[in-house]
Amino acid sequence: MKKVLVTGFDPFGGESINPATESVKQLPDELLGVQIIKREIPTVFDCSLDVLYTLLDEEQPDAVICVGQAGGRPNITVERVAINQDDARIPDNEGAQPIDRTIFEDGPAAYFSTLPIKAMVRDMKAAFVPAAVSNTAGTFVCNHVMYGALHYAATKAPKLKAGFVHIPYLPMQTVDKPTMPSMSQDEIVKGLTALIKTVISVEEDVKETGGAVC
Amino acid sequence: MKKVLVTGFDPFGGESINPATESVKQLPDELLGVQIIKREIPTVFDCSLDVLYTLLDEEQPDAVICVGQAGGRPNITVERVAINQDDARIPDNEGAQPIDRTIFEDGPAAYFSTLPIKAMVRDMKAAFVPAAVSNTAGTFVCNHVMYGALHYAATKAPKLKAGFVHIPYLPMQTVDKPTMPSMSQDEIVKGLTALIKTVISVEEDVKETGGAVC
Amino acid sequence: MKKVLVTGFDPFGGESINPATESVKQLPDELLGVQIIKREIPTVFDCSLDVLYTLLDEEQPDAVICVGQAGGRPNITVERVAINQDDARIPDNEGAQPIDRTIFEDGPAAYFSTLPIKAMVRDMKAAFVPAAVSNTAGTFVCNHVMYGALHYAATKAPKLKAGFVHIPYLPMQTVDKPTMPSMSQDEIVKGLTALIKTVISVEEDVKETGGAVC
Amino acid sequence: MKKVLVTGFDPFGGESINPATESVKQLPDELLGVQIIKREIPTVFDCSLDVLYTLLDEEQPDAVICVGQAGGRPNITVERVAINQDDARIPDNEGAQPIDRTIFEDGPAAYFSTLPIKAMVRDMKAAFVPAAVSNTAGTFVCNHVMYGALHYAATKAPKLKAGFVHIPYLPMQTVDKPTMPSMSQDEIVKGLTALIKTVISVEEDVKETGGAVC
Repeated sequence: MKKVLVTGFDPFGGESINPATESVKQLPDELLGVQIIKREIPTVFDCSLDVLYTLLDEEQPDAVICVGQAGGRPNITVERVAINQDDARIPDNEGAQPIDRTIFEDGPAAYFSTLPIKAMVRDMKAAFVPAAVSNTAGTFVCNHVMYGALHYAATKAPKLKAGFVHIPYLPMQTVDKPTMPSMSQDEIVKGLTALIKTVISVEEDVKETGGAVC
Repeated sequence: MKKVLVTGFDPFGGESINPATESVKQLPDELLGVQIIKREIPTVFDCSLDVLYTLLDEEQPDAVICVGQAGGRPNITVERVAINQDDARIPDNEGAQPIDRTIFEDGPAAYFSTLPIKAMVRDMKAAFVPAAVSNTAGTFVCNHVMYGALHYAATKAPKLKAGFVHIPYLPMQTVDKPTMPSMSQDEIVKGLTALIKTVISVEEDVKETGGAVC
Repeated sequence: MKKVLVTGFDPFGGESINPATESVKQLPDELLGVQIIKREIPTVFDCSLDVLYTLLDEEQPDAVICVGQAGGRPNITVERVAINQDDARIPDNEGAQPIDRTIFEDGPAAYFSTLPIKAMVRDMKAAFVPAAVSNTAGTFVCNHVMYGALHYAATKAPKLKAGFVHIPYLPMQTVDKPTMPSMSQDEIVKGLTALIKTVISVEEDVKETGGAVC
Repeated sequence: MKKVLVTGFDPFGGESINPATESVKQLPDELLGVQIIKREIPTVFDCSLDVLYTLLDEEQPDAVICVGQAGGRPNITVERVAINQDDARIPDNEGAQPIDRTIFEDGPAAYFSTLPIKAMVRDMKAAFVPAAVSNTAGTFVCNHVMYGALHYAATKAPKLKAGFVHIPYLPMQTVDKPTMPSMSQDEIVKGLTALIKTVISVEEDVKETGGAVC
């Protein structure tokens, strides 16, 4: 493996920063001798995949790890599966709010992550970062991008490993949400660093439970 | 529509009753002129589908709604999708604990419920029963049975509608779990009755958000 | 013991009913040969105690159990203690929102419930109703009324037993709050009936943990 | 103000470290020109106050802030009140488990914190550290020590300001508790530093709501 692409999202819903992108930016440019390309994609159903596909065409990475935020989750969650369905409870950054829409008419109902998800969780926990497998990436832009990345791999780049990781709220985002958990950016960067190393070094996933909660 | 099959599970993990089955048993034998067949299937990966498939072969229902328990959820959740993966954190009733195992080698990655899931949620809420769409049925026997029911429909009974519904803990189950939500059996039966009526009477699902939390 | 007064609150915040009052109204007029007086008091800091004190003067009950709602708690909670402090996050039914105000300048910092709180929890759980001791009644009108009832007993009616019980949301209240637990009215009435019987029949509280969560 | 005493607890329940003490140790020795004394007290009902009282006698600080852990809370909580009651769900570090025991027979039912709790929360939030007022310190050793500190001030040191602060789990403690929130030690130290500055510099508390959840 020579190159890993890691993506965050642009600021969403009037915010001035996006925590996923900020955390991605903090990652080193190289890990275990592998180049880490860090990029931002728009929180927009329609053009997120245009941007991602252009990046994949240009960079031709060995693996792509997309990172988004799942406010309310207390730990870093590695997504197991993306489903072929958009169903937005709120509008995206361009005001689109698709309901029960198939992402790719010619795509399968779902794609499983081709990253070693169990090993990624194991290695984050070994670094003392709370982590778990998640069985749903939702039905908003995060799932859309994960499905799209795996569809690209399935149709155009069979050697590309692809998957999605959700991070919690940052502490600054929960200051007025007193029941909501958060995770500091340092902790998130530590977790992302650990899981990228796993993606680089683990060929085949381990067979063990990943502590999925939902 | 002439016949709907509704299934619960046999008692699990040393319990003497299974709340899903108890609630299913309380349902009427007929709703809106349609026969309601109520049956129990084992909480066992390997034979749950043998039992279900025998029931489907014998009864040839127009729709099958499988009901299981998702302890910790506060409302009745209608599952959107089943994935082609078993991944058990605990053993089933015969001690089997498959990890990351494909359910049907020749099956797709996932099946979407063919029940009108949004309308089912809408109608439960109209009856004042807390309800939501869920985007994951987990990776235990519930997901296994949902996937199996939809695989049966896809391969053998194209007119059969199939899907899965999760119910919360009963109050008696949370007496020593002081942070856990519960729902009374009367409320559950009211919700199941409402959603079965929806399955019987709604041809095409509504396009509206279903309030999914995860 | 000859007479027990049980109070609920009037509808709050524009709602047409108050679940605590509705549940209280469903209670029988007599339990174990003891008269159960059911009354409503206003959700207003300033006059709630005027109404309560008039009721206590007129009825001269042996025990008073005030019932309010703590939305978000999954079980019936018996309050251990009331503190001499009003601190409202939202206005009461007459628009008053006291911040850090002492309730009675000549009162102690707190009063402990004089009801057998551990036995009440034990007996609700024996009736399969989820229940726990709570260590805080908050700082809104519920705590105000509990403190006021105990202050009345301490200063005017030394034989009067007094305390407070919080009930969860009703299911109809959580229909659009998909993460919130609820409890059906039947279950609540069963719990209140059980705890009133305990208040009537238990002279001295049991020494056992009450499963307090906070 | 010349001297502030900040205490943590010794390791509890077989753990090799106590997060509250580790965080306290990271604090600077001086803040705003005021000396910060950092000490550890035992997680034992019977001798915790012996140790604390010896420290208070020897150091004669202007303020004492005791710090403990409330696993499960997502933010730093400043306690409003301590109650005159021990009620342990688990044994302390010497195996004692008092149930419904009065702490000081000659003490009042409760003491309110004499720290500026609302300003402490305001200032932590201004530093982007999630924080809230809490209305209960529980009934274990934390509440015991808070009550004891305030009793000491009330009976022996009228100028001493005293109170209690709860911190969340550290991330390393929730690695196998996938539903539990945590806060990194850096974030905790940032919050404690902010609140100690508030204690040093704010004479009278602000009158505003503190975002208490329970």
